[in-house]
Amino acid sequence: MSAMMPYAPSIVPMDANAAAVANALAIERVLASEPWLVGVRPAGEVIPGLEPNQVLHAAPPASSWEELSPLIRSGVVGAALFEGLAGSPEEALQKVAAGEISVGAAQDHGAMAGGVGSIPASMPVMVLEDRANGNRAFHFLMEGFGRSLVLGMYDAAIEERLVWFRDELGPALDSAIRALGGINCRELMAEALRRGDELHNRNAAATSLFAERLAVGFTKTVTPAAVQERAFALMRENAQFFVPVPLAAAKLALDAADGIEGSSLLTGCGANGAQCGIRVSGLPGQWFTAPAPVPEGILFEEFGIEDAGPACGDSLLVECYGLGATLLPAAPAFWPLVGADSALAEGLTRDARRIALGEHPDYRVPVLGDRGAPIGVDVRRVIETGVRPTIDIVMVHPEPGRGVIGFGLTQPPMECFTAAVAALDQATTRASSA
Amino acid sequence: MSAMMPYAPSIVPMDANAAAVANALAIERVLASEPWLVGVRPAGEVIPGLEPNQVLHAAPPASSWEELSPLIRSGVVGAALFEGLAGSPEEALQKVAAGEISVGAAQDHGAMAGGVGSIPASMPVMVLEDRANGNRAFHFLMEGFGRSLVLGMYDAAIEERLVWFRDELGPALDSAIRALGGINCRELMAEALRRGDELHNRNAAATSLFAERLAVGFTKTVTPAAVQERAFALMRENAQFFVPVPLAAAKLALDAADGIEGSSLLTGCGANGAQCGIRVSGLPGQWFTAPAPVPEGILFEEFGIEDAGPACGDSLLVECYGLGATLLPAAPAFWPLVGADSALAEGLTRDARRIALGEHPDYRVPVLGDRGAPIGVDVRRVIETGVRPTIDIVMVHPEPGRGVIGFGLTQPPMECFTAAVAALDQATTRASSA
Repeated sequence: MSAMMPYAPSIVPMDANAAAVANALAIERVLASEPWLVGVRPAGEVIPGLEPNQVLHAAPPASSWEELSPLIRSGVVGAALFEGLAGSPEEALQKVAAGEISVGAAQDHGAMAGGVGSIPASMPVMVLEDRANGNRAFHFLMEGFGRSLVLGMYDAAIEERLVWFRDELGPALDSAIRALGGINCRELMAEALRRGDELHNRNAAATSLFAERLAVGFTKTVTPAAVQERAFALMRENAQFFVPVPLAAAKLALDAADGIEGSSLLTGCGANGAQCGIRVSGLPGQWFTAPAPVPEGILFEEFGIEDAGPACGDSLLVECYGLGATLLPAAPAFWPLVGADSALAEGLTRDARRIALGEHPDYRVPVLGDRGAPIGVDVRRVIETGVRPTIDIVMVHPEPGRGVIGFGLTQPPMECFTAAVAALDQATTRASSA
Repeated sequence: MSAMMPYAPSIVPMDANAAAVANALAIERVLASEPWLVGVRPAGEVIPGLEPNQVLHAAPPASSWEELSPLIRSGVVGAALFEGLAGSPEEALQKVAAGEISVGAAQDHGAMAGGVGSIPASMPVMVLEDRANGNRAFHFLMEGFGRSLVLGMYDAAIEERLVWFRDELGPALDSAIRALGGINCRELMAEALRRGDELHNRNAAATSLFAERLAVGFTKTVTPAAVQERAFALMRENAQFFVPVPLAAAKLALDAADGIEGSSLLTGCGANGAQCGIRVSGLPGQWFTAPAPVPEGILFEEFGIEDAGPACGDSLLVECYGLGATLLPAAPAFWPLVGADSALAEGLTRDARRIALGEHPDYRVPVLGDRGAPIGVDVRRVIETGVRPTIDIVMVHPEPGRGVIGFGLTQPPMECFTAAVAALDQATTRASSA
């Protein structure tokens, strides 16, 4: 082969080549994401376009109040009461009907709402900043899995805790995080994976690492002892306190690659207790939806399969990014909660590699020979292989007020992927013929 | 089989039966141990029989200064300088020769000395209390693996840190731990095993859990910010800060079963860079020694196999209790440091079960189906099976001042077990004929 040989054109069809180039750019941006926790601020101050009379919930957005699940509606009502938008649940419902209280999907505002979580304007949210590009993402503080607004409940005890979040914990965390110059979440999450977390439903080690960092921040900011003690008690009792970070970090990483023409990278995913939806990079802002699946898992003793309802929460995006169940081999202490064993866990990671666009250089799993996480779902490969991302998920009783019934595994419906790929094809055809 | 059938005497020979009864009692006591960290005090105040002019080192004890390895001698000299027992290394050596400075094995004083560690009277030590029986065990604060007295070195920077340990960190930890009412180490270690530690050479998760507890204690005691910040920085840089706890906890558990006539439970083990020794319950206070083995492992790039010296440290007792390499499957992030993989790790746990007297109800390994740690080595089973406990160990250059060269695996010499069993047999014969 001489250097003088004429240029040999690629035999890859033009469209496929363009898609490969688009996806290569997309995954490069995803992997470059540098999530830092930079503060805790009132949602209304930082979430773009969040109105004072608005409440955000898990994606996808609904075209009417009635389309939302009873769980989400219950969470929105609780959030409206917390915000003082209404004095009673009845008044809240009237104001929703009158359009005086509006709702929207958190992911459409750069935010995330795990579980049945609802975000009104005064709710404190963790602010994550992508130091690779300046983007931001947000998630409310995690109350825990007892009676809580994140499960769509609201009562005096829940209100007392949320008021404490708003008036004392949020400001204390904000000061501490700023005093530290922010917290490097990429570094912290990488270490948590070495300590048995999968960073969706097990964040025990990450929460301890977070507490360890905050302790230094509290020292620098002379935070009152009573606030510190209650904060540390909350983190010790609630090993999921860190979960807002991987949710927001997943969003930041995927947002970095949103809107690349022709890219088939999945950039959004959520379920609202009724519908499940996904978004793709090449068609920014569009949701491809289908009825939300009912997870299968291990239920607490007092519940039966009839108590299981459709998936709910923006946390489905964690696995669609490449953490959570995608890395289940990292978290053996979590396996019994979803009825997994080593073979099932390793199978999930293997499957995820078949539909992933890349591999993370820092998020690694020691037991897998320190290999990197499969990052970024290519919706076209989902169709080609028939493999969908698998999500480990907390199962919430569909009837408001009943709470967590167990943990399970689920997958976004194939219809979402079929619709997304059809729309991508259509867009490509339009672009070629234009 | 009728209820009226006559009593059928056991066919087990009387001696074997007595030994089984003795070992059953021994392991019951070992498993009942409830280690709590109750304070940090000057060694001379709490370690029984530690004289103001004495320095304790890793077991076994030596009958002369010359019998000790150059590493241990170097550590003792450093400790003597720290203590002000001598003004120069030369003076320290003269005083040792004149009998004005004496040495002893930490394990003979209820204490533990990991690595080349040396304990003079004013050195702060963690105080562990067994709430099942009131026993205590002790270990100095862990400096880390850079230049440090725990590696047998002494210079101005090491002195500055140890003075800070003595004058500020030790008292701050003591107050914090007391304000918390002590720290339940059984609970903390059980959780660390679920977070990827094996609790000998990987204590990263345990150190974070410890930092998290201390943060609350510091809050309660209004510890100065500068002390807190340096303490948290030390813990973050030194993921082995927690290692004194599993060492002292191993000693507490085995001490609970020391001195049971006829029991073949191993109750002591250490190596001093020259000799390795073990003790057994039925013959309290006696060491059975042989030349210390040279560990085999993975050396840092700049070192060769010729740089490896005999094992050193009381930490060998951690595996002889049932943690550390015995539970290597729990700590995949540590595997590469000793060249282990999943098969080797699981083989170590399987082997350990063949010589163990019991299984721990709380120290469990998620990846092994949450099965408990094999606890308590029966020296007779070591002889019967040919299986010895395997220890993961930090390898220190035998020439003082060179420091850590890598990590490896090693085993106490079979001669120690042969001698212990022969002595047990002799004691049994004496007892029967008496």
